This record gives sequence, structure tokens and C-alpha cells, in this order.
Amino acid sequence: MDTPVIDHRGPEFAELARKCLDGIKTIFKTTNPVIIYTATGTGAWEGALVNTLSPGDKVLMVETGHFATLWKKMAEKLGLNPEFIVTDWRTGVDAAAVEARLLNDKRHEIKAVCFVHNETSTGCLSSVPEVRKAIDRVGHPALLLVDTVSSLASADYRHDEWGVDVTVAGAQKGLMLPPGMSFNAVSDKALAASKTSKLPKSFWAWDDMLAMNKTGFFPYTPATQILHGLAVAIEMLHEEGLDNLFARHDRLAEATRCAAKAWGFDIVCRDPKYYSPSLTAILLPDGYDADSFRALALECFNISYGAGFGPFKGKMFRIGHLGDTNDTMLMGALAATEMALSLAGIPHNRGGVQAAMDCLVSAHENSTHAATE
Amino acid sequence: MDTPVIDHRGPEFAELARKCLDGIKTIFKTTNPVIIYTATGTGAWEGALVNTLSPGDKVLMVETGHFATLWKKMAEKLGLNPEFIVTDWRTGVDAAAVEARLLNDKRHEIKAVCFVHNETSTGCLSSVPEVRKAIDRVGHPALLLVDTVSSLASADYRHDEWGVDVTVAGAQKGLMLPPGMSFNAVSDKALAASKTSKLPKSFWAWDDMLAMNKTGFFPYTPATQILHGLAVAIEMLHEEGLDNLFARHDRLAEATRCAAKAWGFDIVCRDPKYYSPSLTAILLPDGYDADSFRALALECFNISYGAGFGPFKGKMFRIGHLGDTNDTMLMGALAATEMALSLAGIPHNRGGVQAAMDCLVSAHENSTHAATE
Repeated sequence: MDTPVIDHRGPEFAELARKCLDGIKTIFKTTNPVIIYTATGTGAWEGALVNTLSPGDKVLMVETGHFATLWKKMAEKLGLNPEFIVTDWRTGVDAAAVEARLLNDKRHEIKAVCFVHNETSTGCLSSVPEVRKAIDRVGHPALLLVDTVSSLASADYRHDEWGVDVTVAGAQKGLMLPPGMSFNAVSDKALAASKTSKLPKSFWAWDDMLAMNKTGFFPYTPATQILHGLAVAIEMLHEEGLDNLFARHDRLAEATRCAAKAWGFDIVCRDPKYYSPSLTAILLPDGYDADSFRALALECFNISYGAGFGPFKGKMFRIGHLGDTNDTMLMGALAATEMALSLAGIPHNRGGVQAAMDCLVSAHENSTHAATE
Repeated sequence: MDTPVIDHRGPEFAELARKCLDGIKTIFKTTNPVIIYTATGTGAWEGALVNTLSPGDKVLMVETGHFATLWKKMAEKLGLNPEFIVTDWRTGVDAAAVEARLLNDKRHEIKAVCFVHNETSTGCLSSVPEVRKAIDRVGHPALLLVDTVSSLASADYRHDEWGVDVTVAGAQKGLMLPPGMSFNAVSDKALAASKTSKLPKSFWAWDDMLAMNKTGFFPYTPATQILHGLAVAIEMLHEEGLDNLFARHDRLAEATRCAAKAWGFDIVCRDPKYYSPSLTAILLPDGYDADSFRALALECFNISYGAGFGPFKGKMFRIGHLGDTNDTMLMGALAATEMALSLAGIPHNRGGVQAAMDCLVSAHENSTHAATE
């Protein structure tokens, strides 16, 4: 990316753009076009809504946590009528609850089901196929919009096979890029909906974008430097292999949970079914301020945890283990965490680091066994 | 900018953000806040419209060229009712025409006057103070929205003094940054309008942005790497001094026009009053294809001109002389152009390069005289 800016109307650019536009499809696992926005994930949320929906449309959303709540607020601001399936922010999407609500929507007033695949604020990963099946069982025509900002290229994801209509993603997580680029992967059904959608749109409009992308260009100035990075990121992901990459994320997540358990702490995600491969949100014992702990760890060990939101504000810290991360980096982070817990005087059991190492060694042994069997 | 991504919720970030948010005001010459979008200029156009206007609002725009036309199309897509003051794309904004139209708008149906300060597709720079005075003479309450994508930090600009309500700008021209960031400078009147504006908005909404910016943060993930660059760019601009920078742009523009004149070519801007300091659009003789010429020059000399749009498609090429450019770079570009004209067999007079050198020498002599007087 640290390269001179090229002319975004010149032939060299078209080659770069085609590489990105074709390559990114293999990450979403779609044969349909993927829209690349010069904006962060919040912009791609807006793109998903304004291209497919009309003022006043009812959308069913699931309150998995902070980001689901922000997406709902956005829907309200844009003049949609979102309905929330409430949770305690410690779980993923209950497909049965979605099914029950849709079954009740005899007149098909709900135009879209929207949820966050991996809720970054809590570390809960939901099952897209389960929600898809729930929608199909009821025979409901609602579109399925899924936010994969913190799951794409970290957790298994299959836009086409899973029947998602719009997948929202960003550059700065699993794709390992700096922030400033985001995506909408689209189904034929979503494209059809975009022809009749009545929400006003211009910057986010798919039609202009798709028409220009066919020629290898963008309707307006794109973030050329991040495109350079995206082309390389896609190569790196395939070099590792997506399945290996998902296994790596699962391994690092499991090791982090082992450490948390050994320390004697709960994690926010209370059901193993929803464990996230991207991040782990760890609850501190009652009475200990997680934000002070985060500040101390940043000061002593230059480690930057995610904050707690909503009901968990000041009560938890989040360890991200996605993207360009490996066992060695994670162990450094877990050791820093265990040391920071000691320095902060937060009561915990020693041995979290040891537990994580045991977990990783065991995972590597199993994978070696599996490979030689 | 080539630095590890920092946590956009950490204390180090707040320091960077404050530097940018405060610093950028000195470039727009405003004491009001400036909104920094993670998006390119097209996004900031949308920000200016959706924050201040309501569905069906009439806006008066001036057809200075391709970018003014795109902004008008955007207004239409967003459900506004734009009215165009037509031009032949060879001139800037005629303030008298704006005044006449506003005078006729007895019921004040026009809610905003929008124009492009420097029309990038033609190289015509309009006078903001003249338009402001025209609006004031009529006593019309319309907002004044100005696109400075290719003029900010290249031509003199004074958001507050000139009474502009929203100034739109991008990172990738005078601010010398890669594309991926854009701006809305706002007046109190624009902020007041944003309280009652009814166009749906979320990503572009000023209120959330201003509230978060007060704490040194952004409501959603910003383009951190470009912010690093912005902080440095602002320092560089002040190191040179804005007045010196404007004089440099004027000098390079004048030298380019001297070359074009010596070659025997017309430039698109037909009235010296509107000459642009940022770029010069040069018309080729009838019957010669400018796009083939551009391709040849790119191939032989690795020089990338802007294309012609609208009535000038295939008829002209544009030389940008803004941002991180100096006399030496410009002379290289003009020499490459003169050589490419020869290689392309396009009839022209020799001596364009000499004329440009004479022009630059004379400008430097005059500025030395002025400095020693």
C-alpha cells in the first residue's frame, strides 16, 4: 500500500480493480458481484439497507449486542421500522425466535431479517444456515442481511451456499487492512429488490457502482491504496487456505477461553454454541473496573483491549484474536493479560497462560494426528 | 501513514484526531467544526445535502461542467429538486445569473445555492464572494454550499469570511493525501438547518459526528492511516504558508497557459476571470483525438492527463498542477507534453516549454523584486 497513488482512471488501475473485484468474491464465496465502498463498515450497513428497502419498511433485527443496536438505530434514522428480538447480550441469534416471529407475520410486512454474524461487542457468533432454514421453513419472502464485519475471513462464511441476500463486511478485521473500505456482497434477490427500493441513495447506490465496475473502474474516486492492500490480502488468505485460517482462529479462540477459565473468569458468551473465533470478551469479578484495568495494561504492556458496551460497560475487556495473528502473538497477549491482572490486584487464579499453552499444544498434536491418519 | 494501525478507541488516537480536527479548520479558515468523513468527495457532497435539506427541496445549481452535473444527479437521486443554470462548460459561475434567479424566487422556494468552486473537468474557478454578495443583495435565505474538492489548499479559500454554509472537500488533491477521506466545513446556519432537515441520514449525519468528535473520537471506525497523513499535510501546508502556496499554484497555472498558448492551442476556460490555479484543460485542434494522445503520452512518458468530459470528450486533456508540485515537476510534464504532441503528429508550434520557462523566470523575478522592495 505504501506506493505512489496511481491514476484511478488509467489502465493500470483497471487491472488492480479487476483483481480486487474478482478476488473478493472468493472470500465471500459468491459468484455474484461484490460492491467495494470507500467507507468503513457503518457505510456498508447503510448500503445494505438503502439499496433494498423503502421508507417505513419493517425489518426484523436481533439485539445481539452493541453493533446490532447501532445497526437498528441506523435503520430508524433512515426511516425504516425495525423490530428487535431482545437478548441479554450473552448469546447469538436464536433461529427459533426468528422463525416464530416470521410465522406470525402472515401479511409479510417484514421485508428483511438483519443480524450480526459475529457480534464484536460480546464475542458471540450466530449460525447463518440456521436462520436461513428458519426463514425458508416459514416460506417467508424477507431478505436476509448479515453483518460479517468481524467474521469474514475469520469464521467460515458462504454467501451463496447459505442464501444470504446482502453480506456486509469491512477491510480492517479478517482482511487485515487499515480501515477505510467496506463491502456489500449481493444475491440476485437483493439486486432485484434494489430495482424497486425507494429509500433515497446516491453514494451507496449499487446500480452505478456495478455498471462502472464492469469496466474495471469506480463511479467516483476509490481508496486506491487500500485496493493495493486488498489484492495482496486476498492472495495471503488463499496462501494460508481458508480452511486452515478458520482452524487457526478456532484454535486461538479456544486457547483464550482456556486462559479465562483458568483465571476463574466467565466469558460474556454463555453458550458454547455461539463461541466466537474472532474475539473473546472476558468478565472481571464484580467490583473491579475493567476500564481501569485496560488503561493499566495499555500503560504497562502496550496492549489495547476492546471496551465493554451497554450492560457490560466497565465490566469486561475483549481480546481480539483475528486477522494477522498467530499462536506466538496470542501467548504474548495472554501473558501480558495475566501480568496486568496481577499488577492491577484483580483476584484471579494463576495458570491461565499455562492452560492456553496446553490447549494450543493439544490442538497442534491433534491436527498432526489428523494429517497423518 | 506507513505506520501500524492504532486503536481508534485508545488515548493515542484522540491526540491524533484532535490535531486533525483542529488543524483542518485553519485550512478551511473557519472557527466552526469540520466534519471528517471516511469516504471520498462524492460522499461529502451527499453529507452536505442530506444534513441541510428535506425531500423535494428546490436547490439552485450551476452547470459549470462534469462534476457540477454529477452533484446535480446526486441531488435528484436523493429526492431533491435541483434547477440548473446552464453554461457551455467553458466558464465559471455567473453571479449575476444566480442573483437574477434568486430575485425571481419571491417565495424563497430555493433552499440552497450549490456550486463547484473549481470545476475539475474544465479548469474554471468561480468567485465565492461574488456569489455570496449576489445572495445577500437579494436578501435570499438560501444556504450556500460550495464544492472545493480541487481548490482547497490550492486556491485562496475562506469558509467563514466568505459566508459559506457548507464547504465540501476531499483529501486527495490540495491536501496531498491518498483518496479515502472527505470533509464538510459547516456554518452555524448550516448546523441550524441540520436540526430540521428531513432527508434520511445516518452515516453522513453531522450530529453524532460532532458529539463524538468533541471527545476526540469518531462514531464509527475512521480511516486512521489517512488521519496520520492529514496531520502531517496540515503541518506542511503551514510550513510553506498558505499565501505562498496560492502564489505557487498561480505561477504554475500561468506557466501552463503560456505553454498552451505558445503551442497554438485554446484552453477550455475562455475567460481569464475564471482561470484555475489547480489544473488547465487544453483543447486539441479539430480532428485530433485527445484520448489517443493521452494513451500515447502515458505509454511514452508515463504521464497521466485527465480526460475530457461531456462536450469535450476526446477533445481535450487536462494537466493538473496542484498539491505536491513544483516548477521542476511542471516543466518535466510540459516537456513530456510537447514531445508527445510531436510523436502523435499533432500540429502545434514549438516553443511551449520555452514560453513556460520564461513565464516562470519572470514570476520568480517579480516575486524577488516584491520581496526586496
